[in-house]
Amino acid sequence: MSKPTLYLQSKPEDIAKYVIFSGDPRRVEKIITQLENVTEVSVNREYHTYTGFYQGVRITVTSTGIGGPSAAIAMEEMYECGMEVAVRLGTVMGLKDNLGHFIIPSAAMRWESTSKEYVDASFPAVANHELVEIMNESVAHNNRVSENGIVCSTDGYYTQMKESRLSKKMGTDVLGTFSGLQKYNIAGMDMESGVVLTLGNLMDIKACTVTLATVLDNLKEEIPHEERIEEERILAKIVLDGLVAYDKKEKQND
Amino acid sequence: MSKPTLYLQSKPEDIAKYVIFSGDPRRVEKIITQLENVTEVSVNREYHTYTGFYQGVRITVTSTGIGGPSAAIAMEEMYECGMEVAVRLGTVMGLKDNLGHFIIPSAAMRWESTSKEYVDASFPAVANHELVEIMNESVAHNNRVSENGIVCSTDGYYTQMKESRLSKKMGTDVLGTFSGLQKYNIAGMDMESGVVLTLGNLMDIKACTVTLATVLDNLKEEIPHEERIEEERILAKIVLDGLVAYDKKEKQND
Amino acid sequence: MSKPTLYLQSKPEDIAKYVIFSGDPRRVEKIITQLENVTEVSVNREYHTYTGFYQGVRITVTSTGIGGPSAAIAMEEMYECGMEVAVRLGTVMGLKDNLGHFIIPSAAMRWESTSKEYVDASFPAVANHELVEIMNESVAHNNRVSENGIVCSTDGYYTQMKESRLSKKMGTDVLGTFSGLQKYNIAGMDMESGVVLTLGNLMDIKACTVTLATVLDNLKEEIPHEERIEEERILAKIVLDGLVAYDKKEKQND
Amino acid sequence: MSKPTLYLQSKPEDIAKYVIFSGDPRRVEKIITQLENVTEVSVNREYHTYTGFYQGVRITVTSTGIGGPSAAIAMEEMYECGMEVAVRLGTVMGLKDNLGHFIIPSAAMRWESTSKEYVDASFPAVANHELVEIMNESVAHNNRVSENGIVCSTDGYYTQMKESRLSKKMGTDVLGTFSGLQKYNIAGMDMESGVVLTLGNLMDIKACTVTLATVLDNLKEEIPHEERIEEERILAKIVLDGLVAYDKKEKQND
Amino acid sequence: MSKPTLYLQSKPEDIAKYVIFSGDPRRVEKIITQLENVTEVSVNREYHTYTGFYQGVRITVTSTGIGGPSAAIAMEEMYECGMEVAVRLGTVMGLKDNLGHFIIPSAAMRWESTSKEYVDASFPAVANHELVEIMNESVAHNNRVSENGIVCSTDGYYTQMKESRLSKKMGTDVLGTFSGLQKYNIAGMDMESGVVLTLGNLMDIKACTVTLATVLDNLKEEIPHEERIEEERILAKIVLDGLVAYDKKEKQND
Amino acid sequence: MSKPTLYLQSKPEDIAKYVIFSGDPRRVEKIITQLENVTEVSVNREYHTYTGFYQGVRITVTSTGIGGPSAAIAMEEMYECGMEVAVRLGTVMGLKDNLGHFIIPSAAMRWESTSKEYVDASFPAVANHELVEIMNESVAHNNRVSENGIVCSTDGYYTQMKESRLSKKMGTDVLGTFSGLQKYNIAGMDMESGVVLTLGNLMDIKACTVTLATVLDNLKEEIPHEERIEEERILAKIVLDGLVAYDKKEKQND
Repeated sequence: MSKPTLYLQSKPEDIAKYVIFSGDPRRVEKIITQLENVTEVSVNREYHTYTGFYQGVRITVTSTGIGGPSAAIAMEEMYECGMEVAVRLGTVMGLKDNLGHFIIPSAAMRWESTSKEYVDASFPAVANHELVEIMNESVAHNNRVSENGIVCSTDGYYTQMKESRLSKKMGTDVLGTFSGLQKYNIAGMDMESGVVLTLGNLMDIKACTVTLATVLDNLKEEIPHEERIEEERILAKIVLDGLVAYDKKEKQND
Repeated sequence: MSKPTLYLQSKPEDIAKYVIFSGDPRRVEKIITQLENVTEVSVNREYHTYTGFYQGVRITVTSTGIGGPSAAIAMEEMYECGMEVAVRLGTVMGLKDNLGHFIIPSAAMRWESTSKEYVDASFPAVANHELVEIMNESVAHNNRVSENGIVCSTDGYYTQMKESRLSKKMGTDVLGTFSGLQKYNIAGMDMESGVVLTLGNLMDIKACTVTLATVLDNLKEEIPHEERIEEERILAKIVLDGLVAYDKKEKQND
Repeated sequence: MSKPTLYLQSKPEDIAKYVIFSGDPRRVEKIITQLENVTEVSVNREYHTYTGFYQGVRITVTSTGIGGPSAAIAMEEMYECGMEVAVRLGTVMGLKDNLGHFIIPSAAMRWESTSKEYVDASFPAVANHELVEIMNESVAHNNRVSENGIVCSTDGYYTQMKESRLSKKMGTDVLGTFSGLQKYNIAGMDMESGVVLTLGNLMDIKACTVTLATVLDNLKEEIPHEERIEEERILAKIVLDGLVAYDKKEKQND
Repeated sequence: MSKPTLYLQSKPEDIAKYVIFSGDPRRVEKIITQLENVTEVSVNREYHTYTGFYQGVRITVTSTGIGGPSAAIAMEEMYECGMEVAVRLGTVMGLKDNLGHFIIPSAAMRWESTSKEYVDASFPAVANHELVEIMNESVAHNNRVSENGIVCSTDGYYTQMKESRLSKKMGTDVLGTFSGLQKYNIAGMDMESGVVLTLGNLMDIKACTVTLATVLDNLKEEIPHEERIEEERILAKIVLDGLVAYDKKEKQND
Repeated sequence: MSKPTLYLQSKPEDIAKYVIFSGDPRRVEKIITQLENVTEVSVNREYHTYTGFYQGVRITVTSTGIGGPSAAIAMEEMYECGMEVAVRLGTVMGLKDNLGHFIIPSAAMRWESTSKEYVDASFPAVANHELVEIMNESVAHNNRVSENGIVCSTDGYYTQMKESRLSKKMGTDVLGTFSGLQKYNIAGMDMESGVVLTLGNLMDIKACTVTLATVLDNLKEEIPHEERIEEERILAKIVLDGLVAYDKKEKQND
Repeated sequence: MSKPTLYLQSKPEDIAKYVIFSGDPRRVEKIITQLENVTEVSVNREYHTYTGFYQGVRITVTSTGIGGPSAAIAMEEMYECGMEVAVRLGTVMGLKDNLGHFIIPSAAMRWESTSKEYVDASFPAVANHELVEIMNESVAHNNRVSENGIVCSTDGYYTQMKESRLSKKMGTDVLGTFSGLQKYNIAGMDMESGVVLTLGNLMDIKACTVTLATVLDNLKEEIPHEERIEEERILAKIVLDGLVAYDKKEKQND
């Protein structure tokens, strides 16, 4: 009998080949309301892990906590358990007047540094082409519009995404981050995609990120609360539908 | 009335000037069993925040999750709420046959990169001298032995602290990390001290880290489970006693 | 009347919105044999530029010379003239026993440094998702098999792709490059894709690379000469067919 | 019989376990007036080395010259001779309206690069906790006030500490250095502490720096000459008293 | 029989010990009009290679294309064939009101990165002292005036030497490059000297660059067309005369 | 009346336009025995400064101490006083079986970091062409043989030039430095040439280094003591003769 992993306390037999990662442990609990026959794998630290079924396809949902270091641990332990497809489901801060848009990034700019412990910054954190195609289609089937721009992942929320008491004391130009990234055509910012996409490529598995722009730069605008609840439900549905479509296609290819 | 902070959902009136940070949300719940009159401030994502009293001194206890990015958010938001003293209470991987020792690092090596978003790597993540002194004494009062070596904080658990399926596939020399750090006299490794100590200095507040070496390099040896429960309780008591001693001393100086 | 650009000596009216880039000026002359109504735009330095028609679609073909600096000049001047879609057509050194395969990279690792003059290395040199999809289909229509791995672009041919008298004198481990890149799942190496894909994203135009693996690492194996001539003809046909398909699709979307 | 070291021309038998380092060779000659039974060990290049007794404790005093490279040589050769405690006694440029203050830095920011030849910049140049405590007390016993802030050590005096003909010709913003460092709460600047504290930790000996802020940023204000002579005498007395107290404490612990 | 090199398709027996490198293939064809008994070695990609005689001395002339990567290939393959003296003959963008001057740089600033694949940036791209002396004299014999300042080689023409549509879209401060370099006393800019001089030193052969400042910064002024044709002819003559003088001197030393 | 400089305590009227820099203050005192009418300008810290006459030419001789930071201060203050020609006179550790050779480096590899505070590492620390020529001739007139190779300047003596107790404790591969540099054709190592040559270029004055290889790598061989005294005398004579020749030539050009 295999030993559970250190942080996510999971064994290969508990984990499906499709794994959805969410930053917020509480969002995991919301996502699994759309699944059937759900089993709790473990709830430990910021990692809440469940496995269930969606339209007959076995899927694991887990959380990563905030930031690259804890996301890398989640990816590593799911890979240890046999994960073959990794989808990060999350929210981003939009930089392009794209509030409420579904962004399925073709790649991430790697400002975060956890992924650099694996490979230098010049390696592209690119999403799997096939998964992006399928998730684009899933967005369309759910009557939403998708974009495939580049997002930027960062380690510092209060240095690069929002002003704070400390950033003001130090005179840090947080807002300058946004204009800098807009020059590079960056669609949005988050803190984990760089890790999920880089590690996906190194593991030679398929990975992508499906996100919703819930706020704009420096929180200048947000999706209204009610609408956000509904759109986050759709976001989960898009990912689940996409995984089912992928599974069907893969079975055809066999 | 002030608005709660974004992630820890805290207002200045909820937060004491003394804040204890623990990586694991569940450990927060254990620590507060030693407090009285505890109020839950918020439980959101990996951040569980409570304020209570220990020997009459008001103290907040919160969690940071794993890694520098989420620890920086916790530090930033507590500082937003008026924190004056920050103590990280955690565990480290010992590199010096120091299993079970209480390490109160004089400083941290900043391999993690979140703190580099604030100031370049040459800035020392040094603990506050006065706090270290008081915590050393608190360790002694609790009949334990303290060390003041240097710890190293890193972003990559499975690149620098433990081998994994991916590290083996890539041929990463994880074990080489330990011999490399031992050459520099490093006493132990964790993932958050670099952030807590660097930000403490930049905020011009007092910060230190009080840790217990619960495992040795690459998990080759661990404190037995029962003993660990007791020693972690002592660890919390040491920090709480230390804060009370600090508070008394500070009142005398006024 | 507009002034011709400095190196490619082109004016907007000479250049189609679809531009094919080839490293070797002589290959340009081969590609245009598949076009009709070809006009020579200019032949200057390593830049040979022609515009013609393929199945009614106006297409420009030009050369970049070897390496990032001259490729960036070609991209810049074509963008100056109104280019909207950029396709690099080239050969790569395969690193995965993929001799003769058609590799349409989803992204490039940016070891070359010209693109770093535009944006730091953490920005992903990702190909346009839609173009990659269309080129994948074009490969299939031409009865070939495509791969969408990651290629690595480098500045040093005789430091990282092939041993030389100097590399031997200096004791440079050229062969070590290959095993290093194989650890990262890299499919092949070239010298220009990093520039073409990075600049395409910054210009907010669509760019991709369509390549043929004509040699394996350190030239240990090559496609036989006769076969190579035919496969390079097919390579050009794949790109031309792809652009026609793209053009048709875009007109439908209008 | 052992061979003398290369630059300080010292043998183990000539050197005490307590070594005081001063930048200026002439200051060494002043310090030793407070010692008894002084022997000249050697006077070579910028290294003037003497060993004597203070209240019965054997102490060596030597000079380092200006800058990290020559300070590292002095530290290395004294370590070769058996040094166990290293105290840099020097002056700093105050950045906090702290003219005349005694600064016993808890750590140094490592802008100088000599220490980076030993270990990367993320390693903290932290002073020994116990020595800092004892020197704080020695300052108090001498009726002076001590601070334990962070100093920054730099390689370029006329690039970062004072304007010059060349800095003006080149348009270097020397004064901008000060505001930059003040943002990081830096108490003062010098050129050697980074080396002394980093090497002390790597050697696993005890090291600290005891300094007097004799000038403010860009030399805008200085301690008057007469007062400076007296305060520098006190500075030496503080260090000597501290070493005696340390020696007493250590003997008690045996 | 030896195999021709990969790109320049040359064999040792085809190549003289003196090799002149020109960026523009077409300029090679102009230079060889001053030679006798010229043989075409090969015309492949941007590499046009000829060997002939000038005043009885056998000399090879070849082209490098634009940029460091292709220049390094040319240098490597000529070295493979036995080259002993390498002279880059080219044009530079003058930064010192030195339009029309003959600049024989004593060294190059290595902003280009191809040479960094061989040795880190701190290695000086210095011209051979003896060759510079001889070329200085050749300039004088041809009634021109020479300068021996430092040139800067760069990878990005449209990021650091001239504004473009993309530089304007991105807001890149191209013109700021010039004032930055003028602060460092830089005489002019090109794209290849850094490679030619660095590799010359590593190969332990003699190398220098002989250049004409044909334009000023950002192309604000140019040598008139007719005059430029004549001055470029003189430029070639200077180099050829210099090589003959060198050859004579070397034979005397034997 | 002008104010003396801070460290070398010199005024413009005290300083000749020709300045010789020596690392060792004691060597300054030896050099000036070859001068006439010598005036002591100041003796402060490691800076001993004298001005005198050699064959009627006014020359200042000063010391720099060991390492880049103190050498930069000496260069800066002499430039403040009007220096026009700077010659470093020193010894190097030979890396090429060149014990006893006179090396007049054409340039220095900038491993030391003080010069990087002025300009990034890619700027060449190149000696002035004209001075090198004159010093080469002066060596010949003194019946010695000169070389013009490249030297490497470093900040760490006991990390890169000689093993020590600390390097052994840390397991540093000091000896590996030599083979690394030999691969780059480096003729010798010192600690100051990188600074003197870089600053000379930035100041737009003439600078060179004239050195004697007195030891080989890791001190494996040294010039015998008696011979060394004589050769160091010749070294000073070469520099003095060279400056006189330079002065004569310059006067002819006026």
